[in-house]
Amino acid sequence: MTIDVCVSPALYSYYRQREEETIVVVVDIFRATSSMCAAFMNGVGAIIPVAHIEDAREYKQEGYLVGAERNVKRCDFADFGNSPFDYSRNRVEGKKIVMTTTNGTQAIEVALNSFSLLIGAFSNITAVAHYCINQNKPVVVLCSGWNNRFNLEDTLFAGALCNMLCERGFSLASDAGLMALDMWKNASADVRSYLNRSEHIERLLKHGLEADIEYCLRMDVTSVLPIYCRDRKAIVI
Amino acid sequence: MTIDVCVSPALYSYYRQREEETIVVVVDIFRATSSMCAAFMNGVGAIIPVAHIEDAREYKQEGYLVGAERNVKRCDFADFGNSPFDYSRNRVEGKKIVMTTTNGTQAIEVALNSFSLLIGAFSNITAVAHYCINQNKPVVVLCSGWNNRFNLEDTLFAGALCNMLCERGFSLASDAGLMALDMWKNASADVRSYLNRSEHIERLLKHGLEADIEYCLRMDVTSVLPIYCRDRKAIVI
Repeated sequence: MTIDVCVSPALYSYYRQREEETIVVVVDIFRATSSMCAAFMNGVGAIIPVAHIEDAREYKQEGYLVGAERNVKRCDFADFGNSPFDYSRNRVEGKKIVMTTTNGTQAIEVALNSFSLLIGAFSNITAVAHYCINQNKPVVVLCSGWNNRFNLEDTLFAGALCNMLCERGFSLASDAGLMALDMWKNASADVRSYLNRSEHIERLLKHGLEADIEYCLRMDVTSVLPIYCRDRKAIVI
Repeated sequence: MTIDVCVSPALYSYYRQREEETIVVVVDIFRATSSMCAAFMNGVGAIIPVAHIEDAREYKQEGYLVGAERNVKRCDFADFGNSPFDYSRNRVEGKKIVMTTTNGTQAIEVALNSFSLLIGAFSNITAVAHYCINQNKPVVVLCSGWNNRFNLEDTLFAGALCNMLCERGFSLASDAGLMALDMWKNASADVRSYLNRSEHIERLLKHGLEADIEYCLRMDVTSVLPIYCRDRKAIVI
């Protein structure tokens, strides 16, 4: 079995092979997929991911709770931004909410036809790895990046997952997997120091989001495994 | 001044900023840009890069010498394949030739509007670095990849150039530059061992092209600096 890494949603079509048999793990460490995992850990019922702000606004007018973020900031019409701390138990438990973010929800949209589409983050990485090992199907980690550009933190998550799966008999499908695994081996002893040079940490710090950074880099905070359900057009557990 | 790295021609539009002021270094280590540098070292007058095989075939019918390769093999109608050894002095000196390759010539096509488009390879890396330092303009290394997928060898070249330019006061523009520079620092002591795991070395070895691999990884074989000339629609020195 193989694991591959796609460093940008704009490259996904070049990594899509036998898509209907492939597990795609969408990751947006800072912060969409980390926040989704936080929401499920806090009892959210379902998350409807939408790529466009206009769609999110329509849902809001229909009475849904909506999380909407662009370029680090919460959109003015939205109930939540993109911080994992926004999705607290008292606000989301038992609710069906809508979410749109700068990068993460776009990445979800390109991979909707895979065998299964998982939401991955450092916070649920072991749960994601177990699922992949049990299903025994090829895996592609789809990094959300930043406006389709390469980023360090999503690639680092991909490397960590490559490491876990290769220890359980998976092999790397491509050069991108080799690069990501090497990155993880360089960085794993001190992930925060490694990422301190990254573009997005700088962006988050400018907005005073140190606590978000720490949260999003913590491993195995939860065992939730959010999966996109085509029939419901929503992410559920 | 900054240096950025774009890991695939399909991502170039997301790395294109103030394009008319930017130096783009196109790299396809195995083997298009290495072969172009070999051809100029051996006295070729000009290389007309074309992305499509049909165009190359038309040039052939008009009497041009043509290099044409797809998926490692020379196209049947062509005079040259994509090996640097094909472009020997006795065959290319003083000639204007046409070239199309699987990845390299496609990468050239997307970046034609830059301030200047250089052909980079390990064989002329110091010449490329000197040009960038003297011009003192932002640099983007455009990796050709493999069918728009990430590859190790082009990214490694990007890392080596980042290293040279950062030592002369340039700074990294993005996370992709950080990744490439880290890769170079990991690999520089023994580039061949580092790349032995790569997809394309495997592909080349299957075709018995060990000598090509060795050639393409040798640094500073030449000081030629091939540049695309828009007026002539050709690469010249």
